This record gives sequence, C-alpha cells and structure tokens, in this order.
Amino acid sequence: MADQRRDVLETFDNQFPDRDYKIEIVCPEFTSVCPKTGQPDFGVLILTYTPDRKCVELKSLKLYLHTFRNDGIFYENVTNTILDDLVAELAPRRMQLRAEFSARGGITTTVTVDHLRDG
Amino acid sequence: MADQRRDVLETFDNQFPDRDYKIEIVCPEFTSVCPKTGQPDFGVLILTYTPDRKCVELKSLKLYLHTFRNDGIFYENVTNTILDDLVAELAPRRMQLRAEFSARGGITTTVTVDHLRDG
Amino acid sequence: MADQRRDVLETFDNQFPDRDYKIEIVCPEFTSVCPKTGQPDFGVLILTYTPDRKCVELKSLKLYLHTFRNDGIFYENVTNTILDDLVAELAPRRMQLRAEFSARGGITTTVTVDHLRDG
Amino acid sequence: MADQRRDVLETFDNQFPDRDYKIEIVCPEFTSVCPKTGQPDFGVLILTYTPDRKCVELKSLKLYLHTFRNDGIFYENVTNTILDDLVAELAPRRMQLRAEFSARGGITTTVTVDHLRDG
Amino acid sequence: MADQRRDVLETFDNQFPDRDYKIEIVCPEFTSVCPKTGQPDFGVLILTYTPDRKCVELKSLKLYLHTFRNDGIFYENVTNTILDDLVAELAPRRMQLRAEFSARGGITTTVTVDHLRDG
Amino acid sequence: MADQRRDVLETFDNQFPDRDYKIEIVCPEFTSVCPKTGQPDFGVLILTYTPDRKCVELKSLKLYLHTFRNDGIFYENVTNTILDDLVAELAPRRMQLRAEFSARGGITTTVTVDHLRDG
Amino acid sequence: MADQRRDVLETFDNQFPDRDYKIEIVCPEFTSVCPKTGQPDFGVLILTYTPDRKCVELKSLKLYLHTFRNDGIFYENVTNTILDDLVAELAPRRMQLRAEFSARGGITTTVTVDHLRDG
Amino acid sequence: MADQRRDVLETFDNQFPDRDYKIEIVCPEFTSVCPKTGQPDFGVLILTYTPDRKCVELKSLKLYLHTFRNDGIFYENVTNTILDDLVAELAPRRMQLRAEFSARGGITTTVTVDHLRDG
Amino acid sequence: MADQRRDVLETFDNQFPDRDYKIEIVCPEFTSVCPKTGQPDFGVLILTYTPDRKCVELKSLKLYLHTFRNDGIFYENVTNTILDDLVAELAPRRMQLRAEFSARGGITTTVTVDHLRDG
Amino acid sequence: MADQRRDVLETFDNQFPDRDYKIEIVCPEFTSVCPKTGQPDFGVLILTYTPDRKCVELKSLKLYLHTFRNDGIFYENVTNTILDDLVAELAPRRMQLRAEFSARGGITTTVTVDHLRDG
Repeated sequence: MADQRRDVLETFDNQFPDRDYKIEIVCPEFTSVCPKTGQPDFGVLILTYTPDRKCVELKSLKLYLHTFRNDGIFYENVTNTILDDLVAELAPRRMQLRAEFSARGGITTTVTVDHLRDG
Repeated sequence: MADQRRDVLETFDNQFPDRDYKIEIVCPEFTSVCPKTGQPDFGVLILTYTPDRKCVELKSLKLYLHTFRNDGIFYENVTNTILDDLVAELAPRRMQLRAEFSARGGITTTVTVDHLRDG
Repeated sequence: MADQRRDVLETFDNQFPDRDYKIEIVCPEFTSVCPKTGQPDFGVLILTYTPDRKCVELKSLKLYLHTFRNDGIFYENVTNTILDDLVAELAPRRMQLRAEFSARGGITTTVTVDHLRDG
Repeated sequence: MADQRRDVLETFDNQFPDRDYKIEIVCPEFTSVCPKTGQPDFGVLILTYTPDRKCVELKSLKLYLHTFRNDGIFYENVTNTILDDLVAELAPRRMQLRAEFSARGGITTTVTVDHLRDG
Repeated sequence: MADQRRDVLETFDNQFPDRDYKIEIVCPEFTSVCPKTGQPDFGVLILTYTPDRKCVELKSLKLYLHTFRNDGIFYENVTNTILDDLVAELAPRRMQLRAEFSARGGITTTVTVDHLRDG
Repeated sequence: MADQRRDVLETFDNQFPDRDYKIEIVCPEFTSVCPKTGQPDFGVLILTYTPDRKCVELKSLKLYLHTFRNDGIFYENVTNTILDDLVAELAPRRMQLRAEFSARGGITTTVTVDHLRDG
Repeated sequence: MADQRRDVLETFDNQFPDRDYKIEIVCPEFTSVCPKTGQPDFGVLILTYTPDRKCVELKSLKLYLHTFRNDGIFYENVTNTILDDLVAELAPRRMQLRAEFSARGGITTTVTVDHLRDG
Repeated sequence: MADQRRDVLETFDNQFPDRDYKIEIVCPEFTSVCPKTGQPDFGVLILTYTPDRKCVELKSLKLYLHTFRNDGIFYENVTNTILDDLVAELAPRRMQLRAEFSARGGITTTVTVDHLRDG
Repeated sequence: MADQRRDVLETFDNQFPDRDYKIEIVCPEFTSVCPKTGQPDFGVLILTYTPDRKCVELKSLKLYLHTFRNDGIFYENVTNTILDDLVAELAPRRMQLRAEFSARGGITTTVTVDHLRDG
Repeated sequence: MADQRRDVLETFDNQFPDRDYKIEIVCPEFTSVCPKTGQPDFGVLILTYTPDRKCVELKSLKLYLHTFRNDGIFYENVTNTILDDLVAELAPRRMQLRAEFSARGGITTTVTVDHLRDG
C-alpha cells in the first residue's frame, strides 16, 4: 500500500531554483486510526521545506494525506513515514514535518522530524 | 505587463543612510486569482527590509499590489516576483517577503523569500 | 444503515429527574465525507440538552459519531439526522445540536437545530 | 448586470422543512471596489438564515459573491443588495446579513441587515 | 460518607441581608475519579449564588471539594450532589453550579445545575 | 466653535429607507485634551445607528472627530456632544455612542449614550 | 474612619441630566488586607452607573479606593461598603459594583452588588 | 515506593533510530500533595525528548504520573524525580521536563530540568 | 523647534552603573500628523535601552513625545529623530526604538532603529 | 530597614545540586509607592534562577515582597535591590529579575536585571 500511496503525490517545477526560500504548509485536518484501540486520531500537520528542483502540488498532498484516513498507525511512525515519502518525491534542500496530535487520555503529543540533504 | 507593473512603484530618498535600520510593512488585503481554478486567492503580505538609498512609498506599493488583483498566478511565483520587483527598484541591503495565503481545501500555505545584497 | 447506527447509542438513568438541568457535550473531532466531491469534511459538534429519564453515555456517543466517518452526507442533513437519533433515544425535555463545519472554498458553515418536547 | 448576477445563485431543497433551524455561513474573503476612490474594499460577510423550502448551494454563493469583485458599490448598498437577492431566491423564514468591512482612514464599518418574512 | 463530607462546609453570616447580591466562586482545580475506568477526572467548578442569611467560607469550600479527590462518581451526579449540599447548608435565594470537565476521548462535557428557593 | 464643527459633517441619502437596519462605525483613534491637566486623552469611539433618511459620510465623520484634537473637554461631555451633533445632522431612528477612554491613573472609563427618536 | 474615608470622594455636576446614560469605570489595581491572615488581597473593581445630578470625580475615586490599602476587610463587606458610600455621595439612578478578587488557595471570587434608586 | 512507581513505565522500540527527532508530550492534569500543608498541588508537565532505542508508551506514562496523586512532595523534587525515572527507563539522547505549577499565595512556579546523554 | 523639543527631556542618575541591565518603555499613545495628507497618524513606541550614567525620567519623556502631536513628519523620520534625541541626552550603552504605526490604506508599517555606543 | 527586610527571606537546601536546572517564579501582585507622587505602583515580578546550594522558600519570598508595600522607591531601584538581596541570600549560579510595572500616564515600563556568578 505504501508505494500506491506515494504515487498520489504530484510535483511541479520550482521556477526560482537559484533562490533558497521556504514554503510552509499547514494541514489542520489530518486523521488516522489508533492501531491499539481502533479509534480515530486527529492532528495538525505543519510541513516546512526549501525546494530544490520540485515543489509539491497542494491538491495531491491533500489526497495523499487522505490515504491515511482508515489506516492503523502510531504517531511516531506516521510522522516519519510522511517525511520519508515527501523527501523521496521532492528531494528538498531542507524539510521539517511537525505533527501535533489531539489529546488522548488528557495527554497531547507532538512529533517533529527534520531532513537535511546530504552533501 | 510585468514592466508596466513595476513602473507603478515609487520611492523616496532614505534620510538616514548611515544607519542600518528595519522597516516592516504588513498588507493584509492581497488578492490574486488561482491559475488552475480561476477562483480568487487571498493572502497577507509581510515585507521587511533595511533600506540603502531608497524607501518604498506606501501608496505606490498598495497600487502595485492591486495590479495582481485579476492575474492568474501561483503562490510561489507571486511571492518571488514581488520580491524581485522590489529589489530591482530599491536595491535594499536586506529584504524578506512573507506571504501567508488563506486556506484552500483545508490547507494553508506560507511562502517566505529572502534577499541579501551581494558583496 | 441508519437503524444499525442508532443501536450504538447507549443511555443511563438520570439520577436527578426532579431537577431541570443542562448537559453540554463538545465533540471537536467529527468527520464525514462530502457527497459531491468525495473529500472529507470536518466539524465541531456542540450538543446541549436537558435530560428527562435518560442521559447519553459518552463513549457510545463517540462510537455513534464515528459511524459517519466514511458516509457521504450534506451538512444540513447530518445535523438534523443526529438530532433526530438522539431525540428518539433520549426523549429529552430540550435539545440543541450546533455543528460548526471547517472552511471549504473560503466559506465556513454552521447549522443549529433545536428540539423542544411536545406538550 | 444585477439580473445576470442573481442567476448565479443555486438552491437545493430543504430536507427538513417541518423544523425551524438556523444556518450560518461566514465568508471572510469578500472584496469589491470603492466607488469614490476606485480602491478595493475588503470585508467579512456573515449570513444567517432559517430556510423554508430552499437552501443556498455554497459554491454558487461563492461565485455570486465573486461577481462583486470589480464593481464600485458603497458598503450600505452592497449589504442590502445581497440580502435582497438571497431573499428573492430562497424566500427564507428569517435572514440576516452582517458585513464587517476592513478599516479605511482608521475607521471600521459594519452593516447589519435583517429580513423577516411577511405574515 | 456524604454526611461527614457536608460537615466540612462552614458558613458565616451575610452582613448585608437586605440587599440581593451575587457571589461567584471559580474553582479550577476540581478532581475526582471516573467510576468506570478508575482514572482521574479533572474539571472547573463555577458556583454563583445570591446569599440569604449565610455565605460559604472559602477555605472550608476548598476542603469540602477535596473530599471528592479519591471518590468514583459520574459528572452528572457530582454536580448535582455538590449543589444539593451547598443548598442544604446555605439556603441561598438562588444558586447555580456549572462544572466544566476536561476532555475524555476527544469529548468535553459541561453540566449546569440551578436552584431557586421555593416561594 | 461648536457650529463650525458640525458643518464638517456630510451626509448621503439612505437608499433603503423602507428597511430598519444597523450601521456600526468604530473609530479607534480619537484624541482630545484633558481640561484639568492639559495632557492628551485617547479613546475608541463606537457609533451604532439605524438610519432614517440620511447616512453619515465616513471621511467627513473622521474630519469632524479630528476637530476635537486640541480641545480641552471632559469624557462625559465629549461623548454627549458628539451624539447630539450626529442626531442633529442625521435624525436617525436610533443611535448609540460608546466611548472607551484609555487608562489614566490606573483607571479606565467608558461612557455610553443612547438616543431614541421621539414618537 | 468610614466617615473620614467618604469625605475623600468628590463630585461634579452632570451636564446632561435630561439624558439617561451610562458610565463604566474599571479600577484594576484595588488592594486591601485579608482580616484572617493579614496578607494583602488584590482585585479589579468595575463600577457602572447612570448619574442623576452628580458624577464622581476620577482622581478622588482613586484616592478613596487607596484608603482601603491597609484595612483588614472581607470581600463581601468591602464591595457592599464601597457601593453604599458611592450611593450616598452620588444618589445615582442606577449603580452596580463588580469586584473580581485574585485567586487564593486556587479559588477566585467575584462579588456583584446592585443599587436601584427608590421610586 | 519509588521502585514500584518506575515499574509502571512501559516502552516500545523506536522504529526510526537512525534519525534524530523530537517528541513533545503535554500532561495538563498532574496533581500531587504539598508536604507542608497537606493541600493538593496542580500542574502542567511538558516533556520533550529525542529517543534513542526506546519511546515511552503514553498510557503507562499517564499511570506513572497518577502514582504521585496522593504523595507529599516539593515542586523541585517531583520534577527532578520524574526526569530521573524517565532517563533511567528510556536512555534518551536528550530530554527536558518543564513543570508549570498552579498559583499558590498569588505566586506561580515553573521548574525546568534538562538531561543530555553523556559522551 | 528641534532644540526646544530636546530640552523637554529630563534624566536622573543611574544608581546601578556597574550592572548592565535593560529598561523597556512602551508608549501606546503616540500621534503626529502625516506631512502629505495633513491627517493624524497614530502609533505605539517601544523603547528599550541599557543605561550608562543616566536614565530618562518618564514624565519628561511623555511631554517630549507630545511635542510631535501637531508636527507633519514621515514614519521613518520621526523614528530616527526620536532615537537621535534620546541618544544625545542619555548616551546609553545600547538603545532600540520600535515604532508600530496604525494602518493607513489597509497597510501597517513598523520602523525599528538601533543604536550601539561606539567603541 | 534593608537588613530587616532581607531577614525575612528563608531558603532550603537544593536536593539536586549536581544538575543545572531552572526555577521560574511569577509574582503578579507586587505593589510599592511612587516616591514622587505618593501614589501606589503595581507590577508583575518574574524571577528566574539556577540554584546552587540553596532554593528560596516561596512563602518567605511573598512576605519579603510585601515589605515594599508602603515604601517609596523608583522602578529601577526596586528591581535592582530585590535582585541584590536574593543574590546575597541564595548565591545562585544565574539569576534574572524582570519587573513589569503597570501603565502610568499611558506609559508602561519593564526593568530586567541579570546576575551571573563570578568565575
């Protein structure tokens, strides 16, 4: 399923590759399912990146995130997985994904994952 | 059209060129048109710069931004284009443009572009 | 499916039936699917009621709301339907459901439905 | 132009006509043009109504509001005109339109217009 | 235990019985235990009343509320019970207790109970 | 000076005299001078009215308010005076002026004055 | 001491006695001493009144409130006492005093007292 | 009791040990008892860490924090003790615990403790 | 006029010259006049400095700022001029002036000027 | 008086002297008297320190701050004096005191003083 999922992502060419600039995308409507309880989880995803050759197309990003809607997956894993997929498709200069999950049992969790291109 | 647009910008002489200081201008009423859907986009522009010889005249800046009102142009491109035009007219020591666009499809995008004068 | 759905709701006896009091329940994590676009909708449900003989059990309410997760249904219809189901199960003295849906196309919609027991 | 404009509005049948309920729609991205200065005006429209036979379709409402984008029209007139058009199309039981316009010359204006169906 | 609990409450004489006035007391640190799960619940209590002959002494109110710390009791019952105890001790002209409980399972509950002295 | 001042106010015809509607105007930049200390006072004026035949033109209202800039006048008097002038010029169906003055000596004062047309 | 205290209050003539209007005064810096513990109490006083023949002079009000600085007095008593003094000096048409005291032992208390002039 | 307490904590394997990332957990419902007064204390705990081989399981963390519910312990000590226990169980690369305690006597205290792995 | 203006500023001796500490002064009620339109401008001034031998006396600072009340002067110039005057009078170790001007034409401007003492 | 004042402060032993950690204490109810006008001043004190051998006991800190209640002292001096006293008693590794004073004459002042232990 993971490969199928990544195919949903579309990109377009960065028109200003000579400049190092930052794009921040906030998705306040992320939802997946807790693998332990089967209950839905909700969260806000905050993606920040500096594009190299490619930018992510927003509608495809939304559809990609919807593919997690009925998947059972832990917070830490979903955050790392989304970053890995976006890095694989975009090869950005820098990228950070911050996932703020809603309270469960009176406890709120935020996972922040960074990627910095090698070399 | 691009050249015509830049002609709208007016400048005045910086009276304190010996001092390195910062001017921040917030324009919460920017609007252009999405080139894919033809629907209007809305955003807040936050311009920060350190002037060298010239400052931008505020009313002309407003009129310049109005020229985008009925143009179809992507977020990343409009942000980079405005920065390029302002850098060409003002030759500032440093300049940043941050464009916070309103939510579309439940997703909010912010593009931040920086310029640092050569040498 | 509607009948199956209502079976999820559980109730418990109101221990203070001689007093006219108010219970307010806020569910900020409601989600269903737009029947036109197939895209997920998100909203906050605010239920306020004065119980008569029965109160709604919270966990069963949560499970009941989850049954809409993959259903295609309009804002106005989902709000009226939930109120109808709760009225049928609880026979409350008064009940209001306020559903605040997240922005779509830059437009936010809230539907408010009231029930007052006959006679 | 006014007639052409109203044709953009679409409606759908209210599925719960036996119940008196309230729909609130917030459009934070309204823009028109000041007839005196030719400069754009910006505002937030808050529409609240109790439907009778018909509800307004949201996408058509958005397109209808876009028709004012390049029109020169005063605050008081645009608010009354939109209410008149919606009343003519929907024949609602009750309707209110509140238009909060952005500051001009350091002064902020809000116009609130109500309709109550005769008899 | 209930009788023992009420004994903790102390009162003092209202010095201005000829005037109808209002006292509001906010206790943001209420905690008890969920009778189903054994997990702690947390809430904010907002007590509003018009005294007749007696006012509640604040420190004794705090100690009284602490007696619920390790008790298993439902939201609706704890709210009604506290109101009943305070009414029995103070015989106020009017009294309202509003209990806002912290989110559980993504759902927040508030119970509001009123007392009006008989004729 | 009072007559001269009122001459600054301009009006335009209410295009919808058959409808009873409300206009709210917020002026956050009002300033006058304290008659006792000679120091400047600052305040926010909130004007709300239902027009009859005439509406106030916004730019003239701004200029009218500027005429108080260097006048020494008490809070209560300036609020009542502005209401009197606007009532004399507009003959509104209903009008309220609320003036929120900034803190002096750690104390904040708000004066609210209402007018309701006779008979 | 009480008589001495009231002598501090000064008034001035209401210039608009024919109009029924409202004056609201917020004093966020009230402090007195707890008679039980000897520790200082802090609070915000919100005075609202409709003047008849007299208005309270603000500086004298501030000095009057300072006379409580080192007095030991309970919340309910200080609020009723200040209202009584102001009513005696101003004979207002209506007056309300709302005193919001800072948290003690995790509990916040607000006392609200109203006066309505006899027929 | 301390050993018994630490046994409550459970861990799971970090699936992404090659990446240095951050997990932030907010627990707004911490309560213990003041060793001097015997009265309950309340606080918000904010735990931030970079996992190495192990992550803390959230439900066990909640149960672990509940073990302090009826313990008498000072602010500084409880904060350092919780950090010590979590470091012993998780051996994280970096960890910070920030404990914001509710006001007592009008004074609010926050204790922040950091751990950085040796070598 | 400029010399006359600076004479208004008074200073007092810094009692702790051996310590490097920071004083921040916020003046939310600055007003001057736009030299182009003749209309009043409003702004908030935020002054931060580390004193050397002298501190600015607050009442004299207020009176100094009032001297701009009826002067026509541009944003950039007024901010630099005030900093120059304060540096000349105080010879501070470090000083920053941040001037946030109210919106004009839907655009908000902030000017930030820094001074660092030579060698 | 200064010596007498410092005697009020009590300390307790830091149980975790091997760890470099931070304690932040917020006192929103500080009051003293202006030496020029004799009027009370109000402020919020924010104390942050890293303890070495000793921590300050909170109740004694509160009593120490109350000793300034009727003293006439300037903002800059009271802030430096409190820091000096606390440094003398605690010999902390690092300490900062930030004092935010309430507005006087429309101007708000904050003084921030730092101590770093010698070599």
